[in-house]
Amino acid sequence: MSEILSSLRSLMASHSPPLDALVVPSEDYHQSEYVSARDKRREFVSGFTGSAGLALITKSEARLWTDGRYFLQAMQQLSDEWTLMRMGEDPLVEVWMSDNLSEEANIGVDPWCVSVDTANRWGKSFAKKDQKLIPTTTDLVDQVWKNRPQSEMSPVVVHPLEFAGCSVSDKLVDLRGKLKQENARGLVIAALDEVAWLYNIRGTDVDYCPVAHAFAIVTTDSAFLYVDKKKVSDEANGYFKGLGVEVREYNDVISDVALLASNRLFSSFSSKSGAKDMEIDSEKTDRLWVDPASCCYALYSKLDADKVLLQPSPISLSKALKNPVELEGLKKCHVRDGAAVVQFLVWLDKQMQEHYGASGYFLEAESNKKKPTETSSKLTEVTVSDKLESLRAAKEHFRGLSFPTISSVGSNAAIIHYSPEPEACAEMDPDKIYLCDSGAQYLDGTTDITRTVHFGKPSAHEKDCYTAVLKGHVALGNARFPKGTNGYTLDILARAPLWKYGLDYRHGTGHGVGSYLCVHEGPHQVSFRPSARNVPLQATMTVTDEPGYYEDGNFGIRLENVLVVNDAETEFNFGDKGYLQFEHITWAPYQVKLIDLDQLTREEIDWLNTYHSKCKDILAPFLNQTELDWLKKATQPVSVSV
Amino acid sequence: MSEILSSLRSLMASHSPPLDALVVPSEDYHQSEYVSARDKRREFVSGFTGSAGLALITKSEARLWTDGRYFLQAMQQLSDEWTLMRMGEDPLVEVWMSDNLSEEANIGVDPWCVSVDTANRWGKSFAKKDQKLIPTTTDLVDQVWKNRPQSEMSPVVVHPLEFAGCSVSDKLVDLRGKLKQENARGLVIAALDEVAWLYNIRGTDVDYCPVAHAFAIVTTDSAFLYVDKKKVSDEANGYFKGLGVEVREYNDVISDVALLASNRLFSSFSSKSGAKDMEIDSEKTDRLWVDPASCCYALYSKLDADKVLLQPSPISLSKALKNPVELEGLKKCHVRDGAAVVQFLVWLDKQMQEHYGASGYFLEAESNKKKPTETSSKLTEVTVSDKLESLRAAKEHFRGLSFPTISSVGSNAAIIHYSPEPEACAEMDPDKIYLCDSGAQYLDGTTDITRTVHFGKPSAHEKDCYTAVLKGHVALGNARFPKGTNGYTLDILARAPLWKYGLDYRHGTGHGVGSYLCVHEGPHQVSFRPSARNVPLQATMTVTDEPGYYEDGNFGIRLENVLVVNDAETEFNFGDKGYLQFEHITWAPYQVKLIDLDQLTREEIDWLNTYHSKCKDILAPFLNQTELDWLKKATQPVSVSV
Repeated sequence: MSEILSSLRSLMASHSPPLDALVVPSEDYHQSEYVSARDKRREFVSGFTGSAGLALITKSEARLWTDGRYFLQAMQQLSDEWTLMRMGEDPLVEVWMSDNLSEEANIGVDPWCVSVDTANRWGKSFAKKDQKLIPTTTDLVDQVWKNRPQSEMSPVVVHPLEFAGCSVSDKLVDLRGKLKQENARGLVIAALDEVAWLYNIRGTDVDYCPVAHAFAIVTTDSAFLYVDKKKVSDEANGYFKGLGVEVREYNDVISDVALLASNRLFSSFSSKSGAKDMEIDSEKTDRLWVDPASCCYALYSKLDADKVLLQPSPISLSKALKNPVELEGLKKCHVRDGAAVVQFLVWLDKQMQEHYGASGYFLEAESNKKKPTETSSKLTEVTVSDKLESLRAAKEHFRGLSFPTISSVGSNAAIIHYSPEPEACAEMDPDKIYLCDSGAQYLDGTTDITRTVHFGKPSAHEKDCYTAVLKGHVALGNARFPKGTNGYTLDILARAPLWKYGLDYRHGTGHGVGSYLCVHEGPHQVSFRPSARNVPLQATMTVTDEPGYYEDGNFGIRLENVLVVNDAETEFNFGDKGYLQFEHITWAPYQVKLIDLDQLTREEIDWLNTYHSKCKDILAPFLNQTELDWLKKATQPVSVSV
Repeated sequence: MSEILSSLRSLMASHSPPLDALVVPSEDYHQSEYVSARDKRREFVSGFTGSAGLALITKSEARLWTDGRYFLQAMQQLSDEWTLMRMGEDPLVEVWMSDNLSEEANIGVDPWCVSVDTANRWGKSFAKKDQKLIPTTTDLVDQVWKNRPQSEMSPVVVHPLEFAGCSVSDKLVDLRGKLKQENARGLVIAALDEVAWLYNIRGTDVDYCPVAHAFAIVTTDSAFLYVDKKKVSDEANGYFKGLGVEVREYNDVISDVALLASNRLFSSFSSKSGAKDMEIDSEKTDRLWVDPASCCYALYSKLDADKVLLQPSPISLSKALKNPVELEGLKKCHVRDGAAVVQFLVWLDKQMQEHYGASGYFLEAESNKKKPTETSSKLTEVTVSDKLESLRAAKEHFRGLSFPTISSVGSNAAIIHYSPEPEACAEMDPDKIYLCDSGAQYLDGTTDITRTVHFGKPSAHEKDCYTAVLKGHVALGNARFPKGTNGYTLDILARAPLWKYGLDYRHGTGHGVGSYLCVHEGPHQVSFRPSARNVPLQATMTVTDEPGYYEDGNFGIRLENVLVVNDAETEFNFGDKGYLQFEHITWAPYQVKLIDLDQLTREEIDWLNTYHSKCKDILAPFLNQTELDWLKKATQPVSVSV
């Protein structure tokens, strides 16, 4: 590790101009959350494997910023050379740089790996001390990374209309309407899932998110796709030709953006040859639309800043509003996925009893503490999550996991985005809580579910916490609210039951879920973060409902379902606003043993019984008799004690 | 009415430059919510008597903007010449003016009656079409207002330390510390309650709010009070002299602000004569602090804009954080005030039965419909609220009402800020809901309480609505939340039970309450309005908890208590944030007859019984036997049906 830092510091010194600091973000050229192996630059330099974070290397220091989900994991993974900076507690990275780096310091960053928003925010902060953000000519990390993985060569796959539900032509018509509304003559699309959604294509360049590395440009009369042409089969080429989408090399995007800026980007598919000249004359549509959150600074710097419309991409909201085919697909894949989760719980319940003398899923008693003598029969966080993956893999339309399974026992469950490693993970323990947050990609949709279980005797405190998390989960899921309400406003519903005890969780409560796309998607979210106010929740959106509670060194609890936003048929309609409500589309039981039923209201008990009853009925066709018997027991109605 | 508009239009035409439009705000020179009779310019020109609104007069039109509390009232009061503009539904006033007035239009306003914030916001909006905001040289409304009331001549009264709880010297030390923190050499104070709070003085210039018309300026070494000197007795003069506060004429404030800007404002009380010259040299403390929400544009225009710190006055938050003496006073006056409300309900219950054959407060049955034959025995919204006032007036330390009592029967209760007039108000009706929102000023504090009652047989729908409002009221009052939480986040707790039915209310949920000062005070609030995010709720603040539901033409329901924010002793303290909770300080029963107990949770039932039990114990010493017997019946424990 020390060698990496010293090599980087040499490159920083020899850079023109010399750099006082180098920022290494987690993002790839598309500002993705999950990146391919060769794009894990921040992980390579710091050793921290979490999905979010930022490394800063100065002449004498190395610091890593990450958020509350990863504090524990980062502390475990960072070497002594690194200082952990806790987001939300320590100063923001730009504030720290401004305060601690010298006057006129040069701070380098690869301009492809930083968004316009971020670069602008840093620039403002740096101005106070005449510090400068220096776009490096090449990525310095790539230069010191000797065994950097090769480029992916996965083919671009056409996503059939039977799953996509809306044709590319219709999407382009809609998009161009939005360009016209904003007097924009073109849109630069950098987010991988937006490119995939717009052109109804998928890929496997990145683990967990079925996208291809690609950019796109759409103008009022042309559409381009920038992708390594070796990934495009003849068939796919024909598909794009049929759509009037011109395929160009991935690396051409930078020169084409420059051409676009000077209105010289022409497509061979343009319908009217005269249209281009007309466009040039048009004063009214002279703006280019760029999403400052997903477009990198490298591309933005080729544009005339005065003629850029910097606002969220219109595709982000279009993609979040699911069409009827997508909604049907999402519901169907969640049933298959729920069946896999139940099969996993049935299997795990049996294993825990056989291998560890656990009292099991249903019985609230201490285990017999018998330990397997043979290593081969040991169950670990990784072996059980492999079993879950195999159960999912047997389901129709399965295409892989949607994120690394968080399979965590006891204190590991307190690490919010824990990712177990085969060699260094924990063994299953019948006397500790087990938290499993997992999801899969299916051709007809993406899933994301968390259940927390105990196969022995949970403590009263664990039950109190599970019950409070469940109450928040149910309160959010049962909310009705007028149109226009955002996820910032709703967030408290999931937290209030925890706050009563002085408990809380350091993450948002919900994110959008893609349709065979990213498991985390916007533009909406349910969170205390100010960005959750940007876009209200709207009918046909998906959103997760996942409150939790995490006790460092002890245990973690999270319950997560995917919800769909629906119009609510309320008795009244005050203010003619229209009201919305949620529909749960995730199906798997909550563990009644972990609930203190005395703390539930009648409304909560009724909801639980109704959900469990539906769960049993919906999953039954996918289960064998043993599994169904188990599920019937797990979903037996409970009654309120008075 | 027509004559007023035509006179104004003549003055607009002869103004230099000629005005295309004239804005008449509701505010006085101090941007007050409640203004004295001679400052009710907007009411004079429009005829609309509500507390909030704005009139716009163009050459051919007259429009009045007001908020949801007043839509019904404004529709009833405005003549045909006027068009009602609904805030939240119609365009903002500045957007409407920008869109509908001509290019380069001159829009006049009295610069004393418009805040810096408002003037700046309008200015931005007007820039699009080169329109201009013209500060009129005199107030045009005053010129056409023939019988404008005389200036108030009420004396300035010193508010004793036994009620204020903190000396002026201590307040000045604290304030000057804040000036230094912000590198400001002075503060211009325009808000009447801030002047009153800082100097521990009170007045009776304005109905409902015990303040004197006055400005103040505080610098690092001087303090000024601008007030009509005829209102200051020799004794009061001695008081100010003892504090080192220089008293100057009210009208001198404008010239003194100009002197302050050029660092030439000297006080005869300044401690160090050399200090002024030192100040002039100081580059670091060259800013003047002005609150853009309360300071008028006339004063601001005398300052060098580059050297102004435009941010909320530090006094606003200091005033909101009540000291122990103020908290004790507030609790005590709320007990006396609650006793008056209970005595009122006892009296009203008897009257309604005797005069109208009502079944009464406790019995859920139709009335006998007997009507009083003599006019003298009629009960009206005004006569009953006069009775309530007389009961309050008999209490210790009573100094008047804190706002016009909202005493409203049936459909009038749907007018959120309804103010009954003796000649045109409704008669009491045993078969309709009666809503009473009232409060008083006492030397030791300010009160604000709303109860909604029915003396006959409420409909199932009315009970559903009352129950939903009560559930929201209890949910907010019982909330616990981490420090740093603002009232925007908490607002949904009071609305969620109504949203379940598709119901809502068009007003915020809570406002701060002064300590023998304004009944509405900031800087915090509980509301869906973005400004509710500005300042988090903090221990020792007061805030009301007043959800409601209003059905136009039918009935209105509101329940309101004053709460104090306290530190919460939670079982845990996740994140070491510290948690807060509320303490109810208002005491009066909820009407059990209007509650559908089946819809309450056990937690809500327990809360209701505990509150009622405390209510009875706390008020008992202030009631006679008949009243106490009634209260015992009203507060009998209820039990949850299963």
